Amino acid sequence: MTLVERKQRQARQRIVEVAEELFLASGFDNVSVSEIAERAEVGRTTFFRHFGDKQEVLFSKNQEQLATIAAAQDLVDIAPARNAFEAIEQLRPIVLAILALVTVDPEAYIRHFQIIEQNSDLQGREAAKVQQLGDKLSQVLIHRGTDESTALFAAQVALACFQTAKALGNNPHTLVDDTQGAFVRVLTLGREPRTRRAKRSTPG
Amino acid sequence: MTLVERKQRQARQRIVEVAEELFLASGFDNVSVSEIAERAEVGRTTFFRHFGDKQEVLFSKNQEQLATIAAAQDLVDIAPARNAFEAIEQLRPIVLAILALVTVDPEAYIRHFQIIEQNSDLQGREAAKVQQLGDKLSQVLIHRGTDESTALFAAQVALACFQTAKALGNNPHTLVDDTQGAFVRVLTLGREPRTRRAKRSTPG
Repeated sequence: MTLVERKQRQARQRIVEVAEELFLASGFDNVSVSEIAERAEVGRTTFFRHFGDKQEVLFSKNQEQLATIAAAQDLVDIAPARNAFEAIEQLRPIVLAILALVTVDPEAYIRHFQIIEQNSDLQGREAAKVQQLGDKLSQVLIHRGTDESTALFAAQVALACFQTAKALGNNPHTLVDDTQGAFVRVLTLGREPRTRRAKRSTPG
Repeated sequence: MTLVERKQRQARQRIVEVAEELFLASGFDNVSVSEIAERAEVGRTTFFRHFGDKQEVLFSKNQEQLATIAAAQDLVDIAPARNAFEAIEQLRPIVLAILALVTVDPEAYIRHFQIIEQNSDLQGREAAKVQQLGDKLSQVLIHRGTDESTALFAAQVALACFQTAKALGNNPHTLVDDTQGAFVRVLTLGREPRTRRAKRSTPG
């Protein structure tokens, strides 16, 4: 990395940190791009070189996520999944890697969702980003030669595992484990006993 | 239904129809509430009695969806699901009923998504509404006595079935069948042969 690149990266990081502080302190709607730029000691032009708008600052992690997926896609020697089970198993390590990445700094993860929860537009953007991740996941499988219908199904099931972990408290310390637990559950669904219901123990 | 109620219902319906026509013709961002009200021959006050904002007009179907879920929740004599398989099976008819409802008018369904696709805020709102539906689905199960972790998992898997059908073309004519297909797939996941991969046919 050259000195210029390192400086740009530092500026980007500072913008994210300062913006999150301001959003938490004053509320997302009450903070302007000019305020963020001023506090981060960069010009507005620099801000807009890095981020399309104020919302985008909160979703910069997504670029790292997509890079992880792109890297997975490059592992072209992985054979196509032949059924939904295999397809979901192929997505599992990718999803877990992404979640490990975004929870590396648990405080930052919690801060992110504290800001998101303030504002319904941000909640919408978050939900849409998750769906975009689903599109990427299915592309990984299609790229490996899996049929489209299986790939789309597997990607949505993989997202469901992540969404389950989010619904279970969205705890950055357990998110990877909770997601992994959901994967195990989903991959063993057809094996659960269907007749347990019928049996009722009669006391005495 | 009284005459007043019927008139209110008609006004509401007219607002939705007119708004969708205008959004499709001019683009969501270029249509004002005043224009919608004028074309629907109601006052702005009437508009805001029915809808919180311009976006809300596009999501009025959600109220019907939630009514369906509420009705399902009232069937209190359904025993708690004892495992994830049963929980997903309990959600299946509810999800299929909702989808049958929202695709009753296939043209309207297609129009809805044509408008949504114009605008990233609307895509976000749509995605957030789907997650809200997931919350309601898990509440149905919890209300019946299913443990929270199973309920949250089953709700996300049920949403994944619906999202798969959406990703497979979001075709209102096949949406119920496509979703049903995803349910069958997910409920038989653990039964898929894991060893098929190993066998390779050697030609000749």
